[in-house]
Amino acid sequence: MGEPAFALRDATVAIVGLGLMGGSLARALREKNACKELIGIDRDAPTREQALTRGVVDAASADLALASQANVIILATPVRAIIKQLPRVGAIAHTHTVVIDLGSTKRAIIRAMESLPAHVQPIGGHPMCGRETSGFGAADAKLFANVVFVLTPLERTSHATLTFAMSLVAALGARPLVLDAERHDQIVAAISHLPYALAAALMLTADARARADELTFTLAASGFRDTSRLAASDPAMMLDILLTNRENVAELVRASARQLHRLADLIADNDETALRARLTSAATKWRELFES
Amino acid sequence: MGEPAFALRDATVAIVGLGLMGGSLARALREKNACKELIGIDRDAPTREQALTRGVVDAASADLALASQANVIILATPVRAIIKQLPRVGAIAHTHTVVIDLGSTKRAIIRAMESLPAHVQPIGGHPMCGRETSGFGAADAKLFANVVFVLTPLERTSHATLTFAMSLVAALGARPLVLDAERHDQIVAAISHLPYALAAALMLTADARARADELTFTLAASGFRDTSRLAASDPAMMLDILLTNRENVAELVRASARQLHRLADLIADNDETALRARLTSAATKWRELFES
Repeated sequence: MGEPAFALRDATVAIVGLGLMGGSLARALREKNACKELIGIDRDAPTREQALTRGVVDAASADLALASQANVIILATPVRAIIKQLPRVGAIAHTHTVVIDLGSTKRAIIRAMESLPAHVQPIGGHPMCGRETSGFGAADAKLFANVVFVLTPLERTSHATLTFAMSLVAALGARPLVLDAERHDQIVAAISHLPYALAAALMLTADARARADELTFTLAASGFRDTSRLAASDPAMMLDILLTNRENVAELVRASARQLHRLADLIADNDETALRARLTSAATKWRELFES
Repeated sequence: MGEPAFALRDATVAIVGLGLMGGSLARALREKNACKELIGIDRDAPTREQALTRGVVDAASADLALASQANVIILATPVRAIIKQLPRVGAIAHTHTVVIDLGSTKRAIIRAMESLPAHVQPIGGHPMCGRETSGFGAADAKLFANVVFVLTPLERTSHATLTFAMSLVAALGARPLVLDAERHDQIVAAISHLPYALAAALMLTADARARADELTFTLAASGFRDTSRLAASDPAMMLDILLTNRENVAELVRASARQLHRLADLIADNDETALRARLTSAATKWRELFES
C-alpha cells in the first residue's frame, strides 16, 4: 500500500455511530478543524438532526452507503455491531480507504478486519476513556484529551496507514500506543472489564441484602457509589465487550473471586498478620499508581 | 438518668483523636460555635499544636485525664482503640458525662460501653462519611453536612442522652438515624466493608496481572481508579473495622465471590440471555439509587 494517499486535513471522515464515542470524536475533529469534511452515519434520526443542526457533521444518513465517499471510515458502534458492519464497509469503501474502529475489545474485530478487501487499509483502535453517560447528547470534544489511544495494526496494515492513524490520535489530543490485539485484550480484561464485573457484583450482592433490610441503601455513602458506579454502564455495550473477551475476562473474574475468598477466610479466622499484609499491599499499590 | 444535665451550647466537649473524623467534628463545632469549650486529646504533638494554633480547640493534651472536665467525651479513634480507651474513660468521667464514639462498627463498642460505670451515659455513633485522606490536616468542617449519622443507644442510655446526641448530630448538619447495633453492623458490611474488600481484591488481582505485563496500568483510566479507590483506605483502620465485624463481612464477601463465579460462568459459557438479565438488573438498580 506504501505512501499515505492523503493527510487528515484533506480527508473526508465518516463516523459510523454518533454516540458518546463517535459523537465526541466528531466534535473534537470539528472543533480543531482537523479534517476537510465530516459525515455522520447513525440510525437514530434525532441524533443525525442534532449533529447536522449543530454543524458537527456536514452530511448525515442512516445508510452506510453515504460513507463510500470517505477517505477514512471510523466505526464507533458497540463491538459486535462493528463486526457485523465490516463486510458492508468493505463493499462500499474506495481504494486506499482507511478503516478504523473504536471498539473496546480488539481480537474479534481484527479477525473480522482480515476479511476486508485488499484495497482498503484497516487498523484497530481503542481510546482508553469512557463514561457512564451515553448518546450524542453526552458527546464531549475533550473526551480524548490526554487519554491513551491504543492502535492495533493488522499484518496487512501499511506503515503509511499506521502513521495516518497516529496523526488522527494526535489531532484528538490523545496519546497513541501501538499494541498487539491479544495483549490489548488481556490488559483491558484486568483494568476495565474486571472493574466492571466487580462493580456489578457489588451492586447485585448489596441489592440482595437490601431486600432483607430496607434501610441498607439509606446508609450508602460516596464509597459505595463510586465503587459500584461502573455497574451503570450500558448493559448492551458491556455484553459485547465481555462476550468478545470471554477467556481473559472469565479468568480474571475467577482470580478476583479467589482473592475475595482468601480475604473472607483471613477475616473469619481473625488472621490479623496476613490480612494486614494484603490490605497494606493494596493500599500501597493504589497510592503508587494514582498519587505519584 | 432522666433529664439532660446540660445543653450542647453550655457543654465542654472533649474529642479523643483529632484525625479526619475527630478533627472535622472539632472544626464543625467550633465554626458553628455550637458548644462552650472544646478539648482535644491526641497523642501526636504536631496535631495538638495545629489544633491549638488554629483555635480549633481551647485546650489539648496527650493524656485522656484532661477530658475529665468534659460534659461530653467523643471517641474518634479507630474501633479497637475506642474499645481499649473505654475503661479509662469510665475511670475519669464525671457523673452525667455523655460518652459517644464515632467508630465504624458498633456491636463490639456497645459491648465495651456496657461495662462503663453507671454514672456515665454512653451511646454509640457512626457518621456515614469517610475519605481516603486522613489526619487533622484533612479535617473539614463540612464533612458531616447532610450525611446520615447513625446513633446506637444501649439499654441503659436515657432518653435525655439520646435527645442530647441528636442535638449534637443536628449541630453538625447531619441527619440522625437511630439503629440497633447489630442491624447497623449488618448494613455497613454490605454498603461499606464489602465495597472496600472488592476494591482491595481489584487492586491485588490487577497488580498480579501487571507483574506479567508492565503495560497493564498504562491503560488504566478513571473507571479503574474509581472502582479501586477504597483500597487506599488506611489499612490499620480497616483491619479494626473488618475484625470487629467478622461474621457479617466474611458472609457478604463470600456472597460477592459466588456472584463473581456465576458471572464468570455465564461469560465463559456465552450465556447471553442470563448475563444480560444480571447486568441489566445491576445497571437499573444503580440508576434507581443514584440518579433519582
